[in-house]
Amino acid sequence: MSEAAQTLEGWYALHDFRTIDWMAWTAAEEAERQMALDDLHSFLKEWQSIEDNKQGSTAFYSIVGQKADFVLMHLRETLEELNAIENAFNKSAFAQFTIPAHSYVSIVELSNYMAQPGTDPMQNPDILARLKPILPKWNHICFYPMNKRRSGSDNWYMLSMDERRTMMRSHGMIGRTYAGKVKQIITGSVGFDNWEWGVTLFAEDALQFKKLVYEMRFDEVSARFGDFGDFYVGNRLTEEKLSELFNV
Amino acid sequence: MSEAAQTLEGWYALHDFRTIDWMAWTAAEEAERQMALDDLHSFLKEWQSIEDNKQGSTAFYSIVGQKADFVLMHLRETLEELNAIENAFNKSAFAQFTIPAHSYVSIVELSNYMAQPGTDPMQNPDILARLKPILPKWNHICFYPMNKRRSGSDNWYMLSMDERRTMMRSHGMIGRTYAGKVKQIITGSVGFDNWEWGVTLFAEDALQFKKLVYEMRFDEVSARFGDFGDFYVGNRLTEEKLSELFNV
Amino acid sequence: MSEAAQTLEGWYALHDFRTIDWMAWTAAEEAERQMALDDLHSFLKEWQSIEDNKQGSTAFYSIVGQKADFVLMHLRETLEELNAIENAFNKSAFAQFTIPAHSYVSIVELSNYMAQPGTDPMQNPDILARLKPILPKWNHICFYPMNKRRSGSDNWYMLSMDERRTMMRSHGMIGRTYAGKVKQIITGSVGFDNWEWGVTLFAEDALQFKKLVYEMRFDEVSARFGDFGDFYVGNRLTEEKLSELFNV
Amino acid sequence: MSEAAQTLEGWYALHDFRTIDWMAWTAAEEAERQMALDDLHSFLKEWQSIEDNKQGSTAFYSIVGQKADFVLMHLRETLEELNAIENAFNKSAFAQFTIPAHSYVSIVELSNYMAQPGTDPMQNPDILARLKPILPKWNHICFYPMNKRRSGSDNWYMLSMDERRTMMRSHGMIGRTYAGKVKQIITGSVGFDNWEWGVTLFAEDALQFKKLVYEMRFDEVSARFGDFGDFYVGNRLTEEKLSELFNV
Amino acid sequence: MSEAAQTLEGWYALHDFRTIDWMAWTAAEEAERQMALDDLHSFLKEWQSIEDNKQGSTAFYSIVGQKADFVLMHLRETLEELNAIENAFNKSAFAQFTIPAHSYVSIVELSNYMAQPGTDPMQNPDILARLKPILPKWNHICFYPMNKRRSGSDNWYMLSMDERRTMMRSHGMIGRTYAGKVKQIITGSVGFDNWEWGVTLFAEDALQFKKLVYEMRFDEVSARFGDFGDFYVGNRLTEEKLSELFNV
Repeated sequence: MSEAAQTLEGWYALHDFRTIDWMAWTAAEEAERQMALDDLHSFLKEWQSIEDNKQGSTAFYSIVGQKADFVLMHLRETLEELNAIENAFNKSAFAQFTIPAHSYVSIVELSNYMAQPGTDPMQNPDILARLKPILPKWNHICFYPMNKRRSGSDNWYMLSMDERRTMMRSHGMIGRTYAGKVKQIITGSVGFDNWEWGVTLFAEDALQFKKLVYEMRFDEVSARFGDFGDFYVGNRLTEEKLSELFNV
Repeated sequence: MSEAAQTLEGWYALHDFRTIDWMAWTAAEEAERQMALDDLHSFLKEWQSIEDNKQGSTAFYSIVGQKADFVLMHLRETLEELNAIENAFNKSAFAQFTIPAHSYVSIVELSNYMAQPGTDPMQNPDILARLKPILPKWNHICFYPMNKRRSGSDNWYMLSMDERRTMMRSHGMIGRTYAGKVKQIITGSVGFDNWEWGVTLFAEDALQFKKLVYEMRFDEVSARFGDFGDFYVGNRLTEEKLSELFNV
Repeated sequence: MSEAAQTLEGWYALHDFRTIDWMAWTAAEEAERQMALDDLHSFLKEWQSIEDNKQGSTAFYSIVGQKADFVLMHLRETLEELNAIENAFNKSAFAQFTIPAHSYVSIVELSNYMAQPGTDPMQNPDILARLKPILPKWNHICFYPMNKRRSGSDNWYMLSMDERRTMMRSHGMIGRTYAGKVKQIITGSVGFDNWEWGVTLFAEDALQFKKLVYEMRFDEVSARFGDFGDFYVGNRLTEEKLSELFNV
Repeated sequence: MSEAAQTLEGWYALHDFRTIDWMAWTAAEEAERQMALDDLHSFLKEWQSIEDNKQGSTAFYSIVGQKADFVLMHLRETLEELNAIENAFNKSAFAQFTIPAHSYVSIVELSNYMAQPGTDPMQNPDILARLKPILPKWNHICFYPMNKRRSGSDNWYMLSMDERRTMMRSHGMIGRTYAGKVKQIITGSVGFDNWEWGVTLFAEDALQFKKLVYEMRFDEVSARFGDFGDFYVGNRLTEEKLSELFNV
Repeated sequence: MSEAAQTLEGWYALHDFRTIDWMAWTAAEEAERQMALDDLHSFLKEWQSIEDNKQGSTAFYSIVGQKADFVLMHLRETLEELNAIENAFNKSAFAQFTIPAHSYVSIVELSNYMAQPGTDPMQNPDILARLKPILPKWNHICFYPMNKRRSGSDNWYMLSMDERRTMMRSHGMIGRTYAGKVKQIITGSVGFDNWEWGVTLFAEDALQFKKLVYEMRFDEVSARFGDFGDFYVGNRLTEEKLSELFNV
């Protein structure tokens, strides 16, 4: 039996991807649309106030292509809070104009491969801030889930702790060269959703997503051990972009 | 030919995952909604009385994310009883506001890798209680199906009984370190549904699902031989949570 | 080139899995429902008379879980007869309350691995009866499709006839220990549907499906060479169960 | 780099599988149904006249099981003609009672593994007739797509021309033993659709599909290198069968 | 760790595949259809003017078969522009007669395997023109996505830069023999969509797609390392073809 890596966990995450029912939206009366948008703005205001109180964080981005029209990424202290957000949203007038497209349940996670022996990471304010992060307001989002492969001779979970640590270190070093260009939130989803991890990236320049993920693919930990799910990419929904999106 | 493990079986299980048709629910008249909720409460009462009589057990949890809104997990003596539950439910006013999302048919199973030679396990009250369990009222549920892999050199069913017993023992020992934190119900589904087993976990703290499943993944029996299906995670639907969920 | 096994074929088979449109059924007028049930009963009577004349056989079972609500398994002399059954059914008032869920096209098959040299199997009344079987009226049905694997060193079709015969013999011996408990109908579907075979099992006690399929999985022919599709399990729809199912 | 086989191409092919919307069909007024059938008969007449002029060929078969209710297989000189057929059909009154179920785009192809050096195959009238074939009016059709496998040591495209030629010769010899029983049209779809080839078989006795495909599966080219998609099987829609199919 | 190939990026690409809702289209009033077509023509005019100003390019082709009825391929400077095109389109009267069928998000890419050391490719006008190409007005389009395989001993990302360069050179040489017959636009989608690359081909003669892709399949880089997604093929929608398509 191989030694499991220690992990630290912070806020739970729900990525809620939705498609707009454009036929219903364009057919609705102006007053109906206004009521729906009022609902949406109330939610946004409520979620902003939770973020201001550092009790969670919410990001709101459009998604490019037909996979979805937008994503709401919520971070909260408990699964119950995430569930309450979903249920309140589902009953709103706004939600009746949307169709569920995809979702992902996970929890912010730091793997402890780099831990300093003899220190308690939960006493480290930097680490605490990374476990309960306020999501950046950068232009672009990228989300994808991933597994570590367990296939014949490419079985991550049969490697020794040392082998895994060495590979993760090299992997982390690529990430660090993108500091300031790409902000990365890793969420663990073993036991919560269909893949082992979710990766959410933020960047001002979307091209940096491609540069980072492509460069990492040549790194042994991705090349031999990374299995990837569907990728979603989008643009930040500022107030202005939001009005434009729903304006008929 | 490799020797098949002996198994003991108890109650049949039906996991019935449903999505709420929120558009219909929010559009319905208050009286219609009330009639539907009355139906639901009648069912819950009936299922509780069956549980009180130790003729079965039912768990009712919300599901986080878009895969489903809730799951009803039923344990009963026969497949006919499970089928009757489904059919009665499908004809209720409440069910007309739900959409089938996923289901799983299996039977509570104990594998006999650890059996004491010369004893009859069916005379053991602990084992009998585990075969016909009253489902715990813990905060959270996690469900996923799994197979033992049969792939090239990683073929579980070509191993000797001794190799399998050794690995299952190590696996069980991880499980035991979660005693009191995670309650695990294994159900066999060979011949009943698409995977070989269903795993249903209960915990007061959902994070323990991740800790347990992740730690086990480094164990050879999971690392080399475990193939996993979709994961569902949820929160217990107490009376209060239930009113909140359906309150418009 | 490896030598192909000889096979004997009997009646064609159509497994027709359907889901009931419960919303339409519960919303319909009593008279509409009665007309639909009259249609269903006419079909059942007609199919019974064909069975009485030994020109075919039909089994009617509910399915447990959300994959389907019932299956009609039809055996007939030709593909044209099966197609005519489908088309007549699709135009009936009853069918308007059902939604196609899955189907499978195949032909009753006996593989000739065990053939006695110098005898003509088609002169053997036992074999003829097995090729054109009247389906048993046992409590439970189990259906799944399967392939023989062609993957790297586990390639069934690259084995010699002798290797295959030896393995099939061991496989058949497990089956024989379930005589009287499980009745098995093997149907070939190469050239007809997506898998190479369909397996339909009947039992008075559904647990025997699990026992049989699980025990066989440790047999080399399944362990190394069996790939399995979706499993369906159900209960016999007697007259009484049928009224109960559709009673609102 | 391995040497690519030379291929000869003839007519483009569109297999258009459709399901009948039985609820709409049975609910329609007799006059609506008649208008729809008139549309269908106009198309059939038009396609027959194209076939009479040797500018293409069209086959019309029912499909057994739920995958589709019928297939229209069209052969034409250009992709534009196939597209025009689709579009005209989609706008017809008849098409409003059908639901697209599956389609396949390919081109009649002869592989040149057996070519005689020093001869120009396009001067050979037999070859020309096989590239632009009038589809047979036999009782049954079978369609499936396939790839040549590229997997580890079973990589067709890494074999030498000689190895491939030897295997294809053996494969062709099995086909030839079915002459008069099964007529086979191979269409290439690299660059046009999701698989590398489509295989369309015609037979008076559907059992011959199973016999042929099963026997070939033991041939190394199929056993080691064949990957197969979904299989469709059906019966010829003669005028009489057609009336019967749509008669309510 | 293997050295990542350098890449150059140009315009972002959105392939937007749509199906026409023929039932709605044929049922609509002539005036409604005209309003929808007016919308479509306004878009086409606007996109043409952007192309005339070299700020992007748009191609409009029908798709053969049921996968979609047409594709709009848009090239633009930013993801925001692509998103704005989608959203404007989705709100148009025309879009209410279409159903999303598939989409792909990527960016025009040149891989730098052939780069001349000591030169700055971004100073090369040929390269700049290839990064921001005006799409050809050729008769046919072919689109498919692809990955480089990472499977056991066939792991592209574990090869050395030299091995990859040698194979890509051979690959490129095949492409060059199709100069004038097939125009190829490679778009990178790592971090943007589900595959690593999109390949869009244009040809006057659709048969050249098959010839090129098939010939390349025997090249080691495709034979051992290419994994391919769904293929779409279509015909250019000239003004005349467009009227014909929507004419009822």
